[in-house]
Amino acid sequence: MATGVFPLPEFHSFNSIKLGTANAGIKQSVRDDVTLIALDESVQLSAVFTKNAFCAAPVVLAKTALEKADTRYLLINTGNANAGTGMAGFVSAEACISAVAERGGVTADAVLPFSTGVIGEPLPSDKIISVLDAAFEGLNVDHWDKAASAILTTDTRPKGVSSSMLLGGEQLRFNGICKGSGMINPDMATMLAYVAIDLSISGSSLDDLLLKVNAQSFNRITVDSDTSTNDAVVLMATGESGIHYDDLNAHDKRQVEQWLTEQFIALSQLIVRDGEGATKFIEVAVENGKTEAECEAVGYAIAHSPLVKTALFASDPNWGRLLMAIGKAPVQNFDIQKVAIDINNVPLVKHGEKVQSFTEEVGQKLFSEEDIQIRVTLDRGDCSATLWTSDLSFEYIKINAEYRT
Amino acid sequence: MATGVFPLPEFHSFNSIKLGTANAGIKQSVRDDVTLIALDESVQLSAVFTKNAFCAAPVVLAKTALEKADTRYLLINTGNANAGTGMAGFVSAEACISAVAERGGVTADAVLPFSTGVIGEPLPSDKIISVLDAAFEGLNVDHWDKAASAILTTDTRPKGVSSSMLLGGEQLRFNGICKGSGMINPDMATMLAYVAIDLSISGSSLDDLLLKVNAQSFNRITVDSDTSTNDAVVLMATGESGIHYDDLNAHDKRQVEQWLTEQFIALSQLIVRDGEGATKFIEVAVENGKTEAECEAVGYAIAHSPLVKTALFASDPNWGRLLMAIGKAPVQNFDIQKVAIDINNVPLVKHGEKVQSFTEEVGQKLFSEEDIQIRVTLDRGDCSATLWTSDLSFEYIKINAEYRT
Repeated sequence: MATGVFPLPEFHSFNSIKLGTANAGIKQSVRDDVTLIALDESVQLSAVFTKNAFCAAPVVLAKTALEKADTRYLLINTGNANAGTGMAGFVSAEACISAVAERGGVTADAVLPFSTGVIGEPLPSDKIISVLDAAFEGLNVDHWDKAASAILTTDTRPKGVSSSMLLGGEQLRFNGICKGSGMINPDMATMLAYVAIDLSISGSSLDDLLLKVNAQSFNRITVDSDTSTNDAVVLMATGESGIHYDDLNAHDKRQVEQWLTEQFIALSQLIVRDGEGATKFIEVAVENGKTEAECEAVGYAIAHSPLVKTALFASDPNWGRLLMAIGKAPVQNFDIQKVAIDINNVPLVKHGEKVQSFTEEVGQKLFSEEDIQIRVTLDRGDCSATLWTSDLSFEYIKINAEYRT
Repeated sequence: MATGVFPLPEFHSFNSIKLGTANAGIKQSVRDDVTLIALDESVQLSAVFTKNAFCAAPVVLAKTALEKADTRYLLINTGNANAGTGMAGFVSAEACISAVAERGGVTADAVLPFSTGVIGEPLPSDKIISVLDAAFEGLNVDHWDKAASAILTTDTRPKGVSSSMLLGGEQLRFNGICKGSGMINPDMATMLAYVAIDLSISGSSLDDLLLKVNAQSFNRITVDSDTSTNDAVVLMATGESGIHYDDLNAHDKRQVEQWLTEQFIALSQLIVRDGEGATKFIEVAVENGKTEAECEAVGYAIAHSPLVKTALFASDPNWGRLLMAIGKAPVQNFDIQKVAIDINNVPLVKHGEKVQSFTEEVGQKLFSEEDIQIRVTLDRGDCSATLWTSDLSFEYIKINAEYRT
């Protein structure tokens, strides 16, 4: 299940980024399961990784490689997460990396590995290496759509965003693809995103920018509390636009950041919309809090609540569960008399009590929508946080109770 | 659904505690829904309440009353939580309290109100007051079993523990009843427990003792993350045993505390075993951590994980999900190479890797048990924490998607 209709966009081509895919038959042989992304030397790259302590071998290797050398190749496989595989997992990942480095004529540290799929099974490096020549041959600036499909696991559809903005008459372009069906697959490599922009930017500025926009997008989505904040989000800046970020004035930098945040949000929302068993897309906006952290805490108390999520699945306007979820958030000196709640801009609660106009009929109509915004106003400050989630359905249980069988 | 068979025990009688029930027809008229507990002046009482900021009117009133006067009556109704009811909720609760105080010849502050059931609907105080005479007439030292049934809401069975211990040749007795079907009902008055012991004890010592044993029992159970730590746990000490707690030596005090903790744990586990949709009873024991807090954090990361809970429901030995859950716990400098996991005492993971002997067959047999212990050893200290939870089933979704219809 998935909410809404979101076909892949027409992607831009970046001269310095080529993508190739191949079918190694790791877990299935219908779809390509190996993706190679080749970057020209001019491309600046930044990445953020999962914070799960049990992170997989490829995550450990990619983090180390990033510190040592400029990245020239990304190698992504699906069907196997290469996690919980001990030393053997590192050996397999390194074999794949070396094979790419050899074919690409670069050092091993210039290759970042990414794996996603089932955990605890040995990574079949032979299968992957045997299709590397095909992946290299397939490298093409126009293969974003192929890559968008080749990185999927339990996703029900490919996910991509492509857009552009004008900055001082110059065009700035954005391509993004991602995979993830709720971030709740039984692996540590559950969500992956690869984004390209044609900004020219220093490494440190790109790192800062990625941290900021990621905090507002991929770190603000949850299908259930098993969300690791993110597994890997990679941002590549080609410089092809001729716009030099570090030379921009503060206003233009803010504009770029804001635009990039919007694109990241659009991309991250595609994951929630394809969340496992999702029948609803829920935006939780918490406003007028004292700190952004407390707004996030209230938001997650709602978005993680199985009770709220089952009510949303049932299209049941059970507002008491919203009060319960808000009330359990760890907020200091929380005055519930000030809390207001609106559902798709219709007032539900004011001063901590249900408003008269929110009848059962009004509620049932609002909660039957596929897209539902829950706006909570705390009336105790100027901070806010918005996050996105899906409902909790029979299908979710079915998918996760049957995953391995 | 519920796991295991746990009929009510033969309860002790305490001369200074009488219980009476009546049928006010608040939400249904098949079962008694009003419970009155009358205490002699000699009874010492301590109570802990939910920390949810959106707590119900009766919780606010009970907390205030406790500070002002010794408690002589507890009034409990099911079918209506009197929460999210604004000022009207306070007026209704106060009307009930006054009616009890008048009949009992005590001040209003000597009466503690407790409500559990649906929220957001006006409390029908008239209905409750109209059966108070019947409840008073029914007051009897032997009505623990009637009370155990009259405090239930969506529970599938009444819950009680009765036991005794010998201390220096004297017998110390324990009666406990509780209600709660997963602590996830859409109200703030979801779990209630009333416990009597015949210890003689000072008010401050009783408060300390309740905080300690509650932390190890009712604060260590979860059916899902919607658990408010507890709604109300009331501990009453009658003094009838002749044992004076405050005069005991350290060793005997520890013995009493340990015994009381065990009884509280037994009582709290009955709630988990009757958790909404529960098909399994899960103990999560985390050992050899640096602090109790980090052990609790790892335990809850497992016990709150929908992914782990659906695997348990499916009897699927999907150990990767356990690693994932442990890895996402907020533990400083977590060395996953030291982590070991045992399932019902059979080794599953050592040094962060699956052991060879844990085959799919072994795993399937172990995960098919109704009672499953997951023991996690962190190998970084001397602290531990044990908590209890249930699995996540289709029935859970069904119950909570259909609750109001």
